[in-house]
Amino acid sequence: MIQLSLDQVRPWFTKDHENRLQSLAQFAYRQLLDGQVDAFGKGWLSWPVDDHAELYADIDKISDQLTKVSDVTVVIGIGGSYLGARSVLSMVYPEFVDQGKHQVIFAGQQLSGTYHAHLLKYLDNHEVSLVVVSKSGTTLEPSAIFHTFRAYLEQRYGNEAASRICAITDAQKGTLRQYALEKGYATLPIPDDIGGRYSVLSAVGLLPMALAGIDYRQVMAGAAEVKQRYDNLDVADNPSVQYALARHVLYQQGFAAEALVTYEPRVADFAGWWQQLFGESQGKDGIGLFPTMLQFSTDLHSMGQYVQDARKMLVETVLDVEIADAPELVVPQGLDEKNAYLEGRTYDSLREVAIESVIKAHSDAGVPNIRINASGEAASLYGELVYFFEIACAFGGYLLGTNPFDQPGVEAYKTEMKVRLQK
Amino acid sequence: MIQLSLDQVRPWFTKDHENRLQSLAQFAYRQLLDGQVDAFGKGWLSWPVDDHAELYADIDKISDQLTKVSDVTVVIGIGGSYLGARSVLSMVYPEFVDQGKHQVIFAGQQLSGTYHAHLLKYLDNHEVSLVVVSKSGTTLEPSAIFHTFRAYLEQRYGNEAASRICAITDAQKGTLRQYALEKGYATLPIPDDIGGRYSVLSAVGLLPMALAGIDYRQVMAGAAEVKQRYDNLDVADNPSVQYALARHVLYQQGFAAEALVTYEPRVADFAGWWQQLFGESQGKDGIGLFPTMLQFSTDLHSMGQYVQDARKMLVETVLDVEIADAPELVVPQGLDEKNAYLEGRTYDSLREVAIESVIKAHSDAGVPNIRINASGEAASLYGELVYFFEIACAFGGYLLGTNPFDQPGVEAYKTEMKVRLQK
Repeated sequence: MIQLSLDQVRPWFTKDHENRLQSLAQFAYRQLLDGQVDAFGKGWLSWPVDDHAELYADIDKISDQLTKVSDVTVVIGIGGSYLGARSVLSMVYPEFVDQGKHQVIFAGQQLSGTYHAHLLKYLDNHEVSLVVVSKSGTTLEPSAIFHTFRAYLEQRYGNEAASRICAITDAQKGTLRQYALEKGYATLPIPDDIGGRYSVLSAVGLLPMALAGIDYRQVMAGAAEVKQRYDNLDVADNPSVQYALARHVLYQQGFAAEALVTYEPRVADFAGWWQQLFGESQGKDGIGLFPTMLQFSTDLHSMGQYVQDARKMLVETVLDVEIADAPELVVPQGLDEKNAYLEGRTYDSLREVAIESVIKAHSDAGVPNIRINASGEAASLYGELVYFFEIACAFGGYLLGTNPFDQPGVEAYKTEMKVRLQK
Repeated sequence: MIQLSLDQVRPWFTKDHENRLQSLAQFAYRQLLDGQVDAFGKGWLSWPVDDHAELYADIDKISDQLTKVSDVTVVIGIGGSYLGARSVLSMVYPEFVDQGKHQVIFAGQQLSGTYHAHLLKYLDNHEVSLVVVSKSGTTLEPSAIFHTFRAYLEQRYGNEAASRICAITDAQKGTLRQYALEKGYATLPIPDDIGGRYSVLSAVGLLPMALAGIDYRQVMAGAAEVKQRYDNLDVADNPSVQYALARHVLYQQGFAAEALVTYEPRVADFAGWWQQLFGESQGKDGIGLFPTMLQFSTDLHSMGQYVQDARKMLVETVLDVEIADAPELVVPQGLDEKNAYLEGRTYDSLREVAIESVIKAHSDAGVPNIRINASGEAASLYGELVYFFEIACAFGGYLLGTNPFDQPGVEAYKTEMKVRLQK
């Protein structure tokens, strides 16, 4: 269940302004849902309600095979082939909670020799399988790291290595597909008209979920539920659209950055997924809010001073997530006199008071605060949140006049790099 | 060894502009080192070369006691009582490398019932000790969490609990000092004239380092080395001052945010320490660059599009750290044809090519890039980096006309919160 509150943003995004924008919003929303502009890249829109029986059967079969022969799967990917899967695992398995009997570890998300050399040493004490996620198979980090870990598996398992490897890649073409066919790896497809940052509900995210023992059908059900509800809403009642409108107007007023503010450590990685979604979809053509993250209350004790008292360039979007499996913990008795007012409080209730107090203090000081409340079971709620933000992001792109499905700026440094490496 | 390169920032921070600022810089630098303005809060300046024989003896004794009776120490603190200690542990012990026989786990850095309830369960299988870090003893998060874990230890160890607890707190006054005295805990002092964000080289950081088996004398030696070298330099040759000048001029040109860009995962937490240092010291009186972090190459695949192609509001400061103990890892042979150009490359060399390429592509696109290179043993290099940035930050505050040692904006939400909780 996701709810939006714009109460603390009204000094900037007035009801009148909101009303004046509704017909424009209605038009842009229909353009997203039904239009032909940037039609390529909209595969994610109907994805949660499409029929995936065949895909699910393949995922289950591969997941069963890999978990049968190994207790650790290394999942190699970067960007959209990494941030989504990482964020759902973090949300379902908070710190100090094991991923059941099977552990998923991410790699190839950077180039650190230190990280990967130590990971290889760690693997020596485990039975290992490998998933590589790359549409083209030519992205530098996952390609190099894939071959490093592939070579490790071949050295360790010989001919048996191939049965421990799955490639998630383009369904038809590309160097990774060809390599996987030659080697006899299992494969799963990355849909053609779903870009990386919108792909977490495809095999890209679903296989890692399955490996980690997450009921991915519940994730899909959460996304489908939001889709079906929002499709039938007037834009004025659509919280996804209203969130996009509020941040759109704030950007026009000169705010430079938006921080997704989380209060639960298990939700922090979700902000990383959100950052890519908005950064790549709207950060182009010289425009776009800089998407960043704050983890409260941790960062209140480092960035609170800035937010309260510095240049007013920041918008805060508070994502208050309550997950059904959260254990209750209570402040005990016997505190010193100055802290005695905390006795008997649950930590969850303290968090709620903190959220209220911070929103009040910051918005009073000139920092617009948007509030999103979300509650439910971890898996289905994850699906809801994904679809909620995807709609908001793509709709917002149409409003800005940017193409929310391309990323023309990501090639520049890659081109520089290839020139230098191929010299 | 720390080196600064301003080559890719020259289109914005010209040599002429730099020269014109030198006499002002010289004045502000002497004001920092010798002046009486904001004199309270400068304890960290001479700290690395002060005599700490007594403090070291106390730290070693307490560390020996806690590691003798436990294999896990929970260190409770937030803000400056957390970010420094966390960042040095991350830098010395990269992922998949154990902290020797003794493990340090941080708590009280937020209010999550989920995080702390699961941590308590985890502790059941370990022998546990506790360090609580709080100057006043009234900061909500660490106070509540301290009493939660204190109660756990008392329930588990009875009268013996007190011998497993150390309080790092004000040397004379405060509710935590009084409570520790009554209970008979070991204590260590937080120096009076060193603010939280400058305190990592005091007992606040040194005891966690000692517990984790880090040679903190090497850390101090690194800081002392930088201090002694910089004290005798002309400001024109002082890389710390020059870094501060460059970011100062960029802020005046309208840039809104500075990202500390790291390439090694083990350095990422250091950026969190840096963020508090600059956010709290310079983010006040309506001014200040928004300090944020990017982890490349991971975030090139999420935020690269934004940096390259969106609104030009960002400055990048690349912190390229080479740590002496980094294992060498090489891309193997047998790659598919399209990736064959990577064969035989070390990952460290790929990182260097990536850094060069990204700086070129981003600065060509209008994103100023400052580059800092740092290399050495992890412990001493950590000390060098701390002192390098502390000087830059405090000096930059004098240049802006803000007090780099106060934090007037952090009370607003706390006041709101107390009102609500004490109702």
